[in-house]
Amino acid sequence: MQLVGYLDSPYVRRTAITMRLLGIDYQHRELSIFRQYDEFRALHPSVKVPLLILDDGTKLIDSNLIIDYLQTQVARRSLMPPGAPEYREALRVTGLALVGMEKVVQLIYEAQHRPEQCRHEPWKQRIIQQFEGSVDLLEQAVAAVEAPSWLHGPGLCQSDIATAVLWRFMQHNSQVDADAGRWPALAAFSHRAEALPEFMACPLSG
Amino acid sequence: MQLVGYLDSPYVRRTAITMRLLGIDYQHRELSIFRQYDEFRALHPSVKVPLLILDDGTKLIDSNLIIDYLQTQVARRSLMPPGAPEYREALRVTGLALVGMEKVVQLIYEAQHRPEQCRHEPWKQRIIQQFEGSVDLLEQAVAAVEAPSWLHGPGLCQSDIATAVLWRFMQHNSQVDADAGRWPALAAFSHRAEALPEFMACPLSG
Repeated sequence: MQLVGYLDSPYVRRTAITMRLLGIDYQHRELSIFRQYDEFRALHPSVKVPLLILDDGTKLIDSNLIIDYLQTQVARRSLMPPGAPEYREALRVTGLALVGMEKVVQLIYEAQHRPEQCRHEPWKQRIIQQFEGSVDLLEQAVAAVEAPSWLHGPGLCQSDIATAVLWRFMQHNSQVDADAGRWPALAAFSHRAEALPEFMACPLSG
Repeated sequence: MQLVGYLDSPYVRRTAITMRLLGIDYQHRELSIFRQYDEFRALHPSVKVPLLILDDGTKLIDSNLIIDYLQTQVARRSLMPPGAPEYREALRVTGLALVGMEKVVQLIYEAQHRPEQCRHEPWKQRIIQQFEGSVDLLEQAVAAVEAPSWLHGPGLCQSDIATAVLWRFMQHNSQVDADAGRWPALAAFSHRAEALPEFMACPLSG
């Protein structure tokens, strides 16, 4: 199995960390959707990361669907809490983290992939507001967690992965505020997660 | 349960159709993330659709996660084919349809939510190329289907819903080509799907 994309994408990184936590072997292929657009396009016309290429050549896109495949078809084990209220809470928190990732990506596109005169400040302000509101809710969710527990107990779940990956992604990008003073629980949570071998094996790259 | 968002969002519409196919009762609340931004923001700071508000007040975002919740926690029945190769193919096709939706949304944002001088033609052309390449792959996937079968057999799956919803969304938006002459299998497939009561009960609205 081949996972295509740089780990500076939070969607690639959450997928890679999931594979490691599930014990799934994979080959990591770094290919940029911007610097190597034509090469990537020859591989898949969506030019989206992550791209998962299965051993028979089947190509899957969308990190949620790829993670579904890995959990249900490969590992046959889910990184979601088994109890109903915890499962629901894990979905709620994962949704907040995903919207956080999306908003940072939109800000990067705005700042780095269009000339200065084509940027639109009201659009940027709207995205920042959506981003900060979602991160505030994440901070609330994480504030109740005490080490060594994770969000839903002793084991790492999809919501833990997505939350920690978002925070590291925020730190990596100057487009957004990633001030530990404003979001102290998230900063401490990320610090713990990034010390795990599965996270350390998937460092951000550009 | 309350599903918030207009059905002109393909993400809202795929969720609504999923709920109807699963026989899940819900109240539909039309609220615009643009025209009613402040009201929406008071409801959820991400200002994202769909938003699913559960009876206890819990709020879930992201259509993939909401559909996961509906299938695993509410209906306890999945609209995914049971066999492994079909399940994988359903994920592959759903991924293509999701990227199609995303690209149309990006084109709408470019054309409708920034002044003309802030639009960036190379960005638009990149998105159109990603969009058309993905839709070409969808056309191939659907071309092999013969009525009354759907993509993976007699029952409607998530890949069928996403594919049909994307095509209708394309027709609804002048930003992209939705020419039945170019993509005849998708046009015919959509025609069949839109005649189903679950699709007819969820008409596009603006």
